[in-house]
Amino acid sequence: MTFVDRLAFVQSRTCSLLCIGLDTDPASVPAFLRRSRNAVLDFNRRIIDATHDLVCAYKLNLAFYEALGKSGWITIHKTLEYIPAGILSIGDAKRGDIGNTAELYAESLFDDFRFDACTVSPYMGRDSVEPFLAHKRKGVFVLGITSNPGARDFQHLKIGKQPLYEYVACTVAGWNKQKNCGLVVGATRPSQLKRIRTLAPHLPLLIPGVGAQGGDLRSAVRYGCDKRGVGAIINVSRSIIFASGKKDFAVASRTAALLLRNQIEAIRERHFGVGLR
Amino acid sequence: MTFVDRLAFVQSRTCSLLCIGLDTDPASVPAFLRRSRNAVLDFNRRIIDATHDLVCAYKLNLAFYEALGKSGWITIHKTLEYIPAGILSIGDAKRGDIGNTAELYAESLFDDFRFDACTVSPYMGRDSVEPFLAHKRKGVFVLGITSNPGARDFQHLKIGKQPLYEYVACTVAGWNKQKNCGLVVGATRPSQLKRIRTLAPHLPLLIPGVGAQGGDLRSAVRYGCDKRGVGAIINVSRSIIFASGKKDFAVASRTAALLLRNQIEAIRERHFGVGLR
Repeated sequence: MTFVDRLAFVQSRTCSLLCIGLDTDPASVPAFLRRSRNAVLDFNRRIIDATHDLVCAYKLNLAFYEALGKSGWITIHKTLEYIPAGILSIGDAKRGDIGNTAELYAESLFDDFRFDACTVSPYMGRDSVEPFLAHKRKGVFVLGITSNPGARDFQHLKIGKQPLYEYVACTVAGWNKQKNCGLVVGATRPSQLKRIRTLAPHLPLLIPGVGAQGGDLRSAVRYGCDKRGVGAIINVSRSIIFASGKKDFAVASRTAALLLRNQIEAIRERHFGVGLR
Repeated sequence: MTFVDRLAFVQSRTCSLLCIGLDTDPASVPAFLRRSRNAVLDFNRRIIDATHDLVCAYKLNLAFYEALGKSGWITIHKTLEYIPAGILSIGDAKRGDIGNTAELYAESLFDDFRFDACTVSPYMGRDSVEPFLAHKRKGVFVLGITSNPGARDFQHLKIGKQPLYEYVACTVAGWNKQKNCGLVVGATRPSQLKRIRTLAPHLPLLIPGVGAQGGDLRSAVRYGCDKRGVGAIINVSRSIIFASGKKDFAVASRTAALLLRNQIEAIRERHFGVGLR
């Protein structure tokens, strides 16, 4: 099964486009958990316990784990082992390097950690992405438009009449021979999301920026989905996993995730006629 | 001391612009070493023993270590501990992420590993690079032109009349408030190197692509250096560290490094009146 079909299947089965970002900053883990031997892992497990029936994927930003040194390595492995079968895992690493080096990054993410998908940077071009794409069943999300202020510095530059991010989107759509390419498109810019969906009608879109970063949920779902009403992965991290900093943090994360999942499904029902009901 | 001054000092003291890339692919480590408990670390130590008086820096591409899982983490730490004081270490990670995440990457590279410099990707713009630049004494090399074929896909696109990589170079020069910005500029394209040096006269340039990738050494030195005849870091990896695959590998690496260092110094002497003599 191609990655795009795998994603559609998981999203239909779980009735969810929601992806929870396990960006587990140790300083934000509730105090009572911090005494444990591996507080980050314990925290992740409790979040997964509380939310796994509400999501299509979990995304781990590797920076949060690399900052922990070698214990971070173990924590990624054990967190991934804990994610129930049938839910996707995304390694948010934004890697990009020359061919032989990119191969090693791809092996690390896909063969060693066994992530189902990852993020990569486009700047070094096709041969820096190909070693990832060679893993046919895995998803490769190339940065298109990011949700940070610095996106304006280069991504918005005009190549002829087209901004660079649109050129990247069209180029990546052309790389999609194995149906395993996707794009990262920040939800903070709805009109751009709409345009990207037109330029790349079949690519899955990984959409950060809803939640703490303030992106618009309605447009993220409406324009993020393909015509079947799937293919948008709405990633939310801090506003779910740190919904409460106290003993009830897992319950609070479930409440926040449930609310968001249901809001997404209502929008999906309205615009695509598919959803929870 | 600013990073640019630190680099000039080290290059003048060592009489070398050479940086050896410790891209230690375990499959290329000589067979007799592979039985050791940590063959990559043993290999790195012997290369450092054999070459440390000939280089201004060692560069570790993190992909080669991440592929080894948690033992790779330890190997980076122990390799860095083994590099003699006064020689710079560069963490080639090409990271780029939103502000709070970039901070974690910067902490990991600069505070945990204690690299003297690192590489970053420009695609996400200023706020993705700033957390690195905030480490005033550390060097931050932003990807400008890379030495791989895929560089053509995006880096060469025209922004008005200027290719994107030139626009990136000018922008990065504008970020250089703490004198700790640099650029990665592949040696495979000499005319572009010359142009980048004109646009960013004061930035250190990290120049891969000489050696296995076939870049031109003369232009790398001539156009890579600033007007004082320093500031170009000529990185060579495979053609030095894997100069021999047998028991004499360390001696062979020294011979290859010595030859290259002396060639560089002869070019530096000719064009800048500084060098070994």
